[in-house]
Amino acid sequence: MRLAELSRRSGVATATIKYYLREGLLPPGRQVNATTAEYDDEHLRRLRLVRAMIQVGGLPVATVREVLRNVDDESLGRTIRLGAALWALPQVPEPDEDDEYVRAARREADELLDRLGWSNARLLTTISPAYRSLVVAVAAFRRLGYDWDSELLVSYAELMHEAAALDLDFVETRPSEAEKVETAVLGAVLTEPILQALRRLAQEEESARRYGFE
Amino acid sequence: MRLAELSRRSGVATATIKYYLREGLLPPGRQVNATTAEYDDEHLRRLRLVRAMIQVGGLPVATVREVLRNVDDESLGRTIRLGAALWALPQVPEPDEDDEYVRAARREADELLDRLGWSNARLLTTISPAYRSLVVAVAAFRRLGYDWDSELLVSYAELMHEAAALDLDFVETRPSEAEKVETAVLGAVLTEPILQALRRLAQEEESARRYGFE
Repeated sequence: MRLAELSRRSGVATATIKYYLREGLLPPGRQVNATTAEYDDEHLRRLRLVRAMIQVGGLPVATVREVLRNVDDESLGRTIRLGAALWALPQVPEPDEDDEYVRAARREADELLDRLGWSNARLLTTISPAYRSLVVAVAAFRRLGYDWDSELLVSYAELMHEAAALDLDFVETRPSEAEKVETAVLGAVLTEPILQALRRLAQEEESARRYGFE
Repeated sequence: MRLAELSRRSGVATATIKYYLREGLLPPGRQVNATTAEYDDEHLRRLRLVRAMIQVGGLPVATVREVLRNVDDESLGRTIRLGAALWALPQVPEPDEDDEYVRAARREADELLDRLGWSNARLLTTISPAYRSLVVAVAAFRRLGYDWDSELLVSYAELMHEAAALDLDFVETRPSEAEKVETAVLGAVLTEPILQALRRLAQEEESARRYGFE
């Protein structure tokens, strides 16, 4: 397809597509003559991914480029490729290891992973931004004096494990390896707001069931 | 307790506490003489809540004041009081009703609530920011051309309903009505990053189980 059709089918303005091409977020089309290039379904898919990250996820162009480099690196195995793409997304800063709450939260997170039997996640704790996020979030909770018991954390983690299995089942329905990795990245950007909205709706529903509207 | 002890026990600097008092985010202490006021455990608890919203949740002072007004309004029933407090949190803007994807997402969200039997949440769709967030998130997903099937949305919603029941079970362990409402607000601000981190960790774990690390 020509640029005009790519624009029409993706809903992205031609000027924006040209900008993405210049920035290397979209591979060049096949040049058919000096002024015309042909694009295919892969361009369309990539354009949707870029648009999701920039317009929905609010990521800067440099971050998108970094994510795409990992998505496209076929030398990596799937777990690492998915991980590398997700890890390029914005992350929480390194926690302060001199902080007693951070140290306690790290112990609590490690115990949680052991209890859950998440031995693979346990192997990644030194490099995983998700683990770092958990430590930071648990430390924030504890610093405020909340004595949330660890049973609750286990229950939440088990629910999230079910959600993760659904995520990966969906990823596996995608036909090509490139689409699988793209879908995983999109899932991180797009399904988190959906889950958050569903959780708040479920809270409203459950609250009304328990306490009514009075 | 005096201001110095309130500061020590909360970990919040005295200058910051004085600022919160001036801004009306913290009720005044009991004046014992011209220069000294006494504070109690309720001040300590409120201070932790304010700190969570400002320092962890990143909310502006005006929003915190609005949330607290709802938390403190004893004329409201619990569902409405919880809702009103949560609804003062930052929300997604109104979706554009002229947009075909928004209209389709609204139909999809309504069908989802019907299928789930969330009749209470269904009653709140005209006013609930959570419902609006869901419509916006689903529209963003569809606009990108993703044909995520509605079964998956039902499964995610059922998991989030289990999470919401855990949330409310925890809220109910709090002794007073004021603490229940405060805990619900804190849950919205503090447990969302925990769930998000757990989901990403679970994805790493599940991905490594399915595909290994190669």
